[in-house]
Formats: sequence, C-alpha cells, structure tokens
Amino acid sequence: MATHPLNAWYAAAYDVEVGRTLLSRTICNQKMVLYRQIDGTPAALEPACWHRLLPLSLGRLEGDEVVCGYHGLVYNPQGQCTHMPSQETINPSACVRAFPVAERHRFVWVWPGDPLQADPALIPDLHWNHDPAWAADGKLITVACDYRLVLDNLMDLTHETFVHGSSIGNRAVAEAPFVTTHGDRFATVTRWMEDIEAPPFWAGQLFQARGLRGRVDRWQIIRFEAPCTITIDVGVAPTGTGAPQGDRSQGVNGQVLNTITPETDRSCHYFWAFARNYCLNEQRITHELREGVAGIFREDEAVLEAQHRAIDEHPDHQFYNLNIDAGSMWARKLIDRLVAAEAPASAPRTIPLRPAA
Amino acid sequence: MATHPLNAWYAAAYDVEVGRTLLSRTICNQKMVLYRQIDGTPAALEPACWHRLLPLSLGRLEGDEVVCGYHGLVYNPQGQCTHMPSQETINPSACVRAFPVAERHRFVWVWPGDPLQADPALIPDLHWNHDPAWAADGKLITVACDYRLVLDNLMDLTHETFVHGSSIGNRAVAEAPFVTTHGDRFATVTRWMEDIEAPPFWAGQLFQARGLRGRVDRWQIIRFEAPCTITIDVGVAPTGTGAPQGDRSQGVNGQVLNTITPETDRSCHYFWAFARNYCLNEQRITHELREGVAGIFREDEAVLEAQHRAIDEHPDHQFYNLNIDAGSMWARKLIDRLVAAEAPASAPRTIPLRPAA
Amino acid sequence: MATHPLNAWYAAAYDVEVGRTLLSRTICNQKMVLYRQIDGTPAALEPACWHRLLPLSLGRLEGDEVVCGYHGLVYNPQGQCTHMPSQETINPSACVRAFPVAERHRFVWVWPGDPLQADPALIPDLHWNHDPAWAADGKLITVACDYRLVLDNLMDLTHETFVHGSSIGNRAVAEAPFVTTHGDRFATVTRWMEDIEAPPFWAGQLFQARGLRGRVDRWQIIRFEAPCTITIDVGVAPTGTGAPQGDRSQGVNGQVLNTITPETDRSCHYFWAFARNYCLNEQRITHELREGVAGIFREDEAVLEAQHRAIDEHPDHQFYNLNIDAGSMWARKLIDRLVAAEAPASAPRTIPLRPAA
Repeated sequence: MATHPLNAWYAAAYDVEVGRTLLSRTICNQKMVLYRQIDGTPAALEPACWHRLLPLSLGRLEGDEVVCGYHGLVYNPQGQCTHMPSQETINPSACVRAFPVAERHRFVWVWPGDPLQADPALIPDLHWNHDPAWAADGKLITVACDYRLVLDNLMDLTHETFVHGSSIGNRAVAEAPFVTTHGDRFATVTRWMEDIEAPPFWAGQLFQARGLRGRVDRWQIIRFEAPCTITIDVGVAPTGTGAPQGDRSQGVNGQVLNTITPETDRSCHYFWAFARNYCLNEQRITHELREGVAGIFREDEAVLEAQHRAIDEHPDHQFYNLNIDAGSMWARKLIDRLVAAEAPASAPRTIPLRPAA
Repeated sequence: MATHPLNAWYAAAYDVEVGRTLLSRTICNQKMVLYRQIDGTPAALEPACWHRLLPLSLGRLEGDEVVCGYHGLVYNPQGQCTHMPSQETINPSACVRAFPVAERHRFVWVWPGDPLQADPALIPDLHWNHDPAWAADGKLITVACDYRLVLDNLMDLTHETFVHGSSIGNRAVAEAPFVTTHGDRFATVTRWMEDIEAPPFWAGQLFQARGLRGRVDRWQIIRFEAPCTITIDVGVAPTGTGAPQGDRSQGVNGQVLNTITPETDRSCHYFWAFARNYCLNEQRITHELREGVAGIFREDEAVLEAQHRAIDEHPDHQFYNLNIDAGSMWARKLIDRLVAAEAPASAPRTIPLRPAA
Repeated sequence: MATHPLNAWYAAAYDVEVGRTLLSRTICNQKMVLYRQIDGTPAALEPACWHRLLPLSLGRLEGDEVVCGYHGLVYNPQGQCTHMPSQETINPSACVRAFPVAERHRFVWVWPGDPLQADPALIPDLHWNHDPAWAADGKLITVACDYRLVLDNLMDLTHETFVHGSSIGNRAVAEAPFVTTHGDRFATVTRWMEDIEAPPFWAGQLFQARGLRGRVDRWQIIRFEAPCTITIDVGVAPTGTGAPQGDRSQGVNGQVLNTITPETDRSCHYFWAFARNYCLNEQRITHELREGVAGIFREDEAVLEAQHRAIDEHPDHQFYNLNIDAGSMWARKLIDRLVAAEAPASAPRTIPLRPAA
C-alpha cells in the first residue's frame, strides 16, 4: 500500500527557490524540474527527455521553454516538444509530463496525481507565512525518513521533554493532560499547562516582547490537515492574565507551520516556518527564532533518521500505542483513508508505523 | 541478452600502464591482472588465487611469474600453478585463467572470449596512434555508463551544438545533412558543412597551423568498427580550396581515435587519442590538444552518466529514434548481431537503448 | 546455515570501553547497548525501544536504568520497562531483550543465545591478559570479513612468510613441518623451527630481553577453542639451550591472544593482545610490542578484506585444501558441529570456506 496519496497539493519549494534556472526536486518519488516562466508563473515538468532520457535539469531555459542539453529538443511549459534537431515534423508523442503548479503562502505547490482533480482550494492554509500581522521565517530540511515519522513527532509534543530539554521541553509537557479531536481531514491535539515555570525558550520570548518574568500558562494547539500539513498554535502568557479563557493579550504567541512532502518512501522535504505576532519589525528576533527553531529541528532530525533505520531493521515489530499517541494515530488514519480511496483493491492497512514494503 | 560480445579484442590499457607491477583492471565484467614478462611481452591473468581467492594483484612478480600474497602459490603467464608451500605435488587443477593478449597501436588488447578465436588480425585499426606522419596523444577515462551510450554519442555529432557549444559545436553541425553507410562490421556517418564560420576550436587550429582565418569547409567522417571502436576523420579547410573534392592541403586534419571497452554492464573504459598531421613536433600543441579534448570529453561524461542513471530509472521507456540516430542505430545493430552469434538460443533484441536486465 | 553458534560467550568489548555511557555494538548480527551499573556490573540490552524503536543509545543513563531519548520510557538492566510518560499502568509486554554478560580476562563477554545455557565456566581461557606473571596489551580492530577467515589466517602461520616478510615471516616458517591435533572443542597446530636465523621481530626481542644474538629454535603452538578464540604460544630460544625439550629459560616467550567475535556475517570484531613473560615492567617494550603487532595485523586486515570480497564474487568456487590448511579445517569442523547442534533440521555443511548465502 502506498505511504501517501497522489491527489494532493505538496509543497515543492519555497517561492524564492524557483526562478529562471532549472531546479531539480523529487516529490512523491517523482522527479521534477521547476522553473519560472517570463511572467513569473511557475512550471513543473518531468525531467527525462522523451528522446534519450537525459535529465532536462542539464539543459537550459529559452524563454518559457526548456532546451535539452544533449540533442536540443525543446519543450514548452505544458510538456509538448516544439523543436527537434534535423527534423521537419515532430512526432506527436514527443512530450514530457507537466504537473499542476500553484503558488501560495510562500510555497510553490505541485499536484503529482490526476491533474483534473487539482483544485487550488485544497491548498493547506498556511496564511501566517505572509500575513502582515505576523512575522515569519523558515527553512527546508530534507530528512532521511518516512514523512509520517515527522507527523508522529509533531502530533505528540511529549517528546520535547526528552529531545529538546535544553530549550522548549520540561517535565510539564510530558505530564500535562491533552484533548484530541478529529474530522474528515483534520485532527487536533490541545494541551494547556497552567501555572508552570516557562522553559528557557519561552521565558526568553516573554521577556524580550513584554519585559515579563515569572510563572506562565502555556498552550500547544496542534492542527493536522491531511495528508501532511501541521500548524501548531503555541505560546505562553503570565499566569492569571486569562489566556486559558481566551485573553492572550499579555502573552506571546507563535504559529509553527509545518508541511512535510514525501520525497521518496524513505525521505521527505520538511518545510517549516515560525510566525510570531509580536515585535514584528525586529529582524534580530526573526533571525534568532529561525536559527533557534532550526537547532531544535536538528535534534528531531537525528531522532527521526535513527528511528527510520531501526524500523527498517525490525520489519516484524509489533507496535503498541500509548495514550500520547492518540493524535498521530488519527493523522495516520486520515492518511490511510486518502490512500485507500486512490487504491481500489488494496488490503486494509493495519500496522500503523511500518512503511509499506 | 549480453550487452557486448566476448569474442573480440578490447583495449585493456595504454601500453605505458602495463609494466613490471601488477595492474588490476576489469574488462567485460572479468577482473584481470596485467603485467609484462621480462622480455616485455604482456600477460593477463584472472586474479583470484585458486587456493583461497586472494586477488593476485596483492601479490608480487617474480621473473615472469606471479606469487600470491597470502600463501605463496606461484602462477606462470599461462596461469598454471608452479609452486605450492609445504606441498611436494601440485594439484593439476591448480590454475587461474590466462587471457590472450596483444599489443598494437599503443594499446594492450585482451580477448575475454574463446582463446582459439583470438586472431590478432581482428585488432581494430588505430594506426594513427603511432604513425610517424601523425602526432597523437590521449587519455583513459572510466565512465559510469553502458559503453554503448558512448558509441551513440560519437555516432551522432549533432550533440556538439548543445553539449560543446563553447568549443567545437555550433548551429551548423545540428543543421547540416549527413550520409550513413554500413557493412558487416562497419558503419559510417559523413557530414560536410561547407562555407561556414569555424567554431572556436578549429579556428584556433587553422590559424596556428596555417596562419589562416575566415570561412571554412568542415568535415566529420565517422567510422564505427564493431563492437566498440570509432575513428573520426575531422578537420577544416578554407572555403574554396577544394577540400570537399579531395584536396585538403590547405586545411588542418585530425583523427579522433576512440575505443570503448565495457568494464561492467554499467561502466566502461573510454580510451581516446587525438592525432594530427600538422605541426608534428610542437609539444605545446600536443599538450594543448590533449587537454582541450579532455575538457570536451568531460562535458560528455556528465551527460552520459546522467543518461545512464535516467535509463535505469525508466526501465519501461519506449525509445523513438530521430533522423540523427541513424548511425548509432547501425552500430547497435552490428553489436547485436555479434552478441546473437554468441548466444544461440536468446531472443532477438528489439529495444535499442535499454541495457540488459 | 548460520556461520556461528549463538550459545557461546563472545567478547563484546575491552573492559575499559564499557562505562557510565551507552556503548553501541553489534554482536552476531544483534545490536546491543552496553553500560555499567552504579556498582560496576556490566549490562547489555537490545537497543530498540519497545514503543517506537528509537535506539536506546540515543538516550541516557539514570542510575542503573536507561531512559529512551524520544518519549522517555525507562528500562532497567533486566530490560523491563519501569516508566512510561502520561501512563499510569505499564503494558507488561513493554520490555527489551537483556543479554547475559560477564567480565573476565579484561573483556566484557555477552551470550547472544539461550540465557539458561550461559554458564560462565565456558568463557575461554585468556588468563595471560591479566596474570601478574605476564605483561599484556592489545587492541580491537573491526574487519570487514567473515570471522572464520581470521581463524583460517591464525591457524596457518605459513602466511607469515608472504604477508609479514618484513617482521615475523621468513622461509623457515613456510618450510617447517607441523603437527595437528584436535578434541571436541579444541584443535592445535604445533610447529618447531630448529636452528634457524631469527626473523627481525624475534631477533630484536631476544637481544632486548637477554642480550643474545645468533641462531635460534623457534616455536609456534596454536590452540583453537571453538567457536572463535585462538591463543598462540610463540617464542625463540638460542639453539642448543633445550627449548624443544622443555627448557625455555634462555629464550623469550609470548602469548598471542585472539578472540574474534562475529559482528555480522560480513564483519567481525577482532580483539587481540600480546602477552610476554620478560621485561615485565618496561612500558617502552609494551608500547613497542602493541604497535608492532598492530602493524602486522593491519597487513592481515588488507588480505582478509580482499579475500572476503573475492569469495563474494565467486559464489561457486570449489575450494581445495592444501596440507597447510589442516588446522583451519579442524577449526571449521568444530564450529560447524556447534552450529549444527543448534539448527536441528539443517543440511550438513560441506564447502568449508564459503559464507552462508
């Protein structure tokens, strides 16, 4: 059974990565070459030239078209061959696949499945990434693991205590109760930690933004959107100022934006950004947050890659789920439903963590 | 179906590479150890010691014989074991395979197939490489691709326009008509580009050798000899001096010598040399040509290795041939005939570019 | 058929390697994490956390227990989970495998098979490694070959002539006769070389220890203990002083201690030490011997890894045995018996050198 649906929008690149050169990227096991046309519209083509399969990434742009770097066949953004050397007529089969592309929320998205179903309304909501009320910055890391291991990681923040003890984790996270909900394409995990000592990261933010120290109420509201986008509403406010009841005005608030695109069944492109709604114009804080979060995600990366290798080494391991796994279980269930809807005659998926053979 | 015949002479090394040490090389998936006997005659042995398989390349020469570097078994140039430690009689089965070897045209050739058929008259003609009327120099590069991709590359020089635009390629090559012929073991592609602007490489040669500038007639006469040798008669002469009619006396002429030995099904030893019949004693030009051509072949190497990987990734790709592929189609057809003649009961080969599974 | 028995003690580490951190090591294809409890007792656990398989080596020690570095599950030295996050009851299946461990002769030994059979009396005798009458030092090298190739190497010292010609090898070794004996778990090879010129290594030792030069009687008494321990009683004494008859008092004597633990079917941990009974307190000699022997074993390492690769490349090679292979043939026979006793219904092993498919 496939590990991901094909009929979905997947982030392929940050907007700034796509320009007037040929960018190679693999999305859902499919190689692509991405570029912008003269008017700025992004295009995505299958990179293997129809004639002798040379990757088009070794060719060059000529206007809106791509010239193969071996024998000079030319393809337009729709993938049709428009020129062949020493040839008067063009074989009508001469083409490469073109993928639906869209640009939104500072990402270039591609749709690797059926082009007729590629409805831009289905692009996940990551508006904080370009909303003027928020200041956001982020990175792309490519991680050598099944993308679902990253989702598991984000759906259960208990791990902050053990993986990120020096920054955002403390005993309070592992011990606090949480509430899980789900819908057809969404699942949420909400955790409030009231009247606690702030972990180092948040203590620093609260002092920088508000000049405040002392005990806080802390929240983590995780929202999964199938198949692979997770936003986390995070923050702290001084205890007693009403944050749990809805008044966050004395606190600091961030949105951790995550969309994790399968590269192959064994690797993924993890696009993340951190958006805040305070000190919007302080580039120093933007810089500090980007690098601080990057450091935290590097800690996750080491864990996730080791976990993937260990899963490979234990193909028959029977996984048991703990209470803390409730959110990730729902995320996987919703993914499995999307995959099953695309694969009419496949067996039901019963073991949640194991990658497909 | 095999990708190459075994009953053929293959260049294994430049003459200077083979000496009084043990040279390891793989030819047609067969490992060999090459050396010279005391009288200078080259020898080629299967390198795995009969006793415990240690590669003989870890041993040492003793006169005309090879001593294994583990337990001291000794083999003569015919592969027979002539000494065993602590053993009075020698097991008559104790031997390693010896391969027919010949030295000609500055290469050491081996015959990996049936030794009884190893007729030195079948060694390809590369006499320009040591003919005093020509000055030649060259290199060996090992390329991670099926050797036939190199042949395709050389049989269609259209690619010069797109791969070598800064040196020998220009639009004239891609646009000029050409004529293809073939025989039982040979195929030729002849292209004349009359009254054109010389590309940078040839403009430089013509000025150095003859002090001439201006429009030229250019020729490329490609001659394939199955299974893997291609010579290309190349040059330019000032337009109007009669080169197309046979008088090349005002021009400059080179012979590009190429023999491409399969190392494995996924890699090849590409031996090449460039011979010229002008300025024979100017070492500066020899040096410049060798490095200039080496730079051009590095451009090909990147293309060929990317193409091989792409073919591996598209095992079911159906290849279409363009007009420009006529020469390489004949080369492949002649190879396939040689292979089929060695493999009595195998299916006919129908898809030209795909390596055997 | 397996290449090694599981019901045996295998050296997993030098004693000093195991401490208050988590040491990863693979023994007989089984990953382990090794550490010392607070009282110094070593422990060995399977490293894959029961919950999500993260290697415990990425976690940390807390007293005598290991805390997983992802979600904080805690395991005691017996492998039982004693704590789970956000969970009041602990699933009784929550555990990792714990391996029998023992510390003796300066090594930490593990028993990867049935724990009920792990009798410490079966630990091989390497007492010279900590006997006050001997001075010993050694190293661990991990070699990319089947561990049995190392045993073959040690059971036939003829190879010293060809592999170690500059230190301990000379023609005398390859030419001297030897005697082989065997029991149920032991095999010996004894070789006396009387009235010979000492090779450089031993000439140096004899002069350093006794101030003597001149012809010597040299002995090599190899003793194999199944499945993978070999001690070699080595030395020289001046010819005529009675060493062959039992009086070694004028000579120098060493014990080469070797125990070779399969890491995987294609690699092994080779623990060795050299013990001497002369100049016990001269650290300079200890240092010189350790590095001298290390250099000799590096020569073997190159041979053994090349041999393993060659065996892989020749899966159908039929091996013939020479007289010099008598000792290693017995060693392999005794190993095969141990393996067969563990694998009730497997076919008898007939081809001695080839690793199991």
